[in-house]
Amino acid sequence: MPLDPRDRGLAYGDGVFETVRVTASGKSPLWARHRARLYGGLQTLGIAQPSESTLQAALDAGVAALGGEPGVVKLTVTRGVGGRGYLPPQSAQPTVLWQTSTLPEWSERQRREGLALGLCQTPLYPDPLAGYKHLNRLAQVMARREVAQQGWDEGLLLSTRRQPLEATSMNLFARFADHWWMPDLAAAGAGVEGVMQGHLRDTLRHGGEKVVCDLRPLSQLRTAEGLFLCNSVVGVLAVRKLAQWHWPVLASVRELQQSTETFLAGSLKG
Amino acid sequence: MPLDPRDRGLAYGDGVFETVRVTASGKSPLWARHRARLYGGLQTLGIAQPSESTLQAALDAGVAALGGEPGVVKLTVTRGVGGRGYLPPQSAQPTVLWQTSTLPEWSERQRREGLALGLCQTPLYPDPLAGYKHLNRLAQVMARREVAQQGWDEGLLLSTRRQPLEATSMNLFARFADHWWMPDLAAAGAGVEGVMQGHLRDTLRHGGEKVVCDLRPLSQLRTAEGLFLCNSVVGVLAVRKLAQWHWPVLASVRELQQSTETFLAGSLKG
Repeated sequence: MPLDPRDRGLAYGDGVFETVRVTASGKSPLWARHRARLYGGLQTLGIAQPSESTLQAALDAGVAALGGEPGVVKLTVTRGVGGRGYLPPQSAQPTVLWQTSTLPEWSERQRREGLALGLCQTPLYPDPLAGYKHLNRLAQVMARREVAQQGWDEGLLLSTRRQPLEATSMNLFARFADHWWMPDLAAAGAGVEGVMQGHLRDTLRHGGEKVVCDLRPLSQLRTAEGLFLCNSVVGVLAVRKLAQWHWPVLASVRELQQSTETFLAGSLKG
Repeated sequence: MPLDPRDRGLAYGDGVFETVRVTASGKSPLWARHRARLYGGLQTLGIAQPSESTLQAALDAGVAALGGEPGVVKLTVTRGVGGRGYLPPQSAQPTVLWQTSTLPEWSERQRREGLALGLCQTPLYPDPLAGYKHLNRLAQVMARREVAQQGWDEGLLLSTRRQPLEATSMNLFARFADHWWMPDLAAAGAGVEGVMQGHLRDTLRHGGEKVVCDLRPLSQLRTAEGLFLCNSVVGVLAVRKLAQWHWPVLASVRELQQSTETFLAGSLKG
């Protein structure tokens, strides 16, 4: 599927994407959440929405291409071709693309002992399309380069007020004495509302746990009992270290990691 | 030239572009400034730099495609294909694309009487790659949609502190009693350093004019004698109106508009 070089996805990042984990039996347990976020982004951008069957067909094509291997299907929807400069055309035909990749490689040790994080230097600025997974991702590319250059496992991005927001490609949770905490990205007007973050928030609350969503200063993380990161592809990974601070891998995080992995791999192991 | 859909230009907006005005005789008077900004953006992004002859060949191909008509050649350089997620590959082959378009249509009335501007609602947030013309342009797409919906000629984008920064695709100048003024985009950490803005700043200073570059509150624009917008494709257009404020088209702006048009059209008229 070659792309028209005049596509507005290339020209301006005028579109959204989702990376969907697929089980060996071709299931994608978080698909409904991915689809909802994708449609939300398209609506906010005023991009014509492909039908659910069009999206499903693209996902199915990706799943077929994986050929029974667990993996990732990435779906991209752009506004399509046209318009004069930044102004979108009155009616454009959205472009729907799919591509596949293998599961990312996190080592056994990283999965068991947790990740060592650094603090990314550049803040995560507010974003008129915050929450959505749009194609303007240079902040993440820059931050991910910093992670690689510094030799960290991942990098934590702070708001301009130095509040923890998220990692370059994962969302953050922390365990405090009597509650779980996640950053309020909507209040910050920055970051990506992860589908795994939403799934875990709902699962924890459904299980009777208290999950608080607000913005906190970086210093407050030090008083957390434990931290973890999550996304829809790898699931849950504990954080063992951020700059000079250390945390143990909590039993509760290990349990969450295991149940999430089971969920993502499909209840019948592939 | 179809594009590989895995190109990082599409995936993340991982690249830069320039829109170069070309005269009927195939000249591009601002090419050196375009090229310098393009290389600056690539360097900041850590993208391998195509040689000057590669860029020149892309520009020449566009000029040839224009076939002796004045027009615009758009050059896009992306990091190319590869990498795992946001992390760029160790060595990628940058993608170099060109495409052509006709000159934008501003009416005789708009050119003579100036533009009616509105104030865009969403602020222009700081940007880790401020100054460069990178492919993350959703803020401009959103703002340009607002301009169209409101029926304005252009829209002024303010900083989060409500300081005027730039229009959606043009830079701002204002005339005060004893000096010209342009917003200090570097200090704001936001916006695009326009090549025409740089050309005019240097030209004015070379002619003995005082050009001040700093950040000012929106209210200060009201005390300006006149305003104009500029970019490398259309040149100079006066501003006659911003929200409820009006300005005359200054003789000095009309002169600048004329000399810029002559400069952009090439000294030998096509």
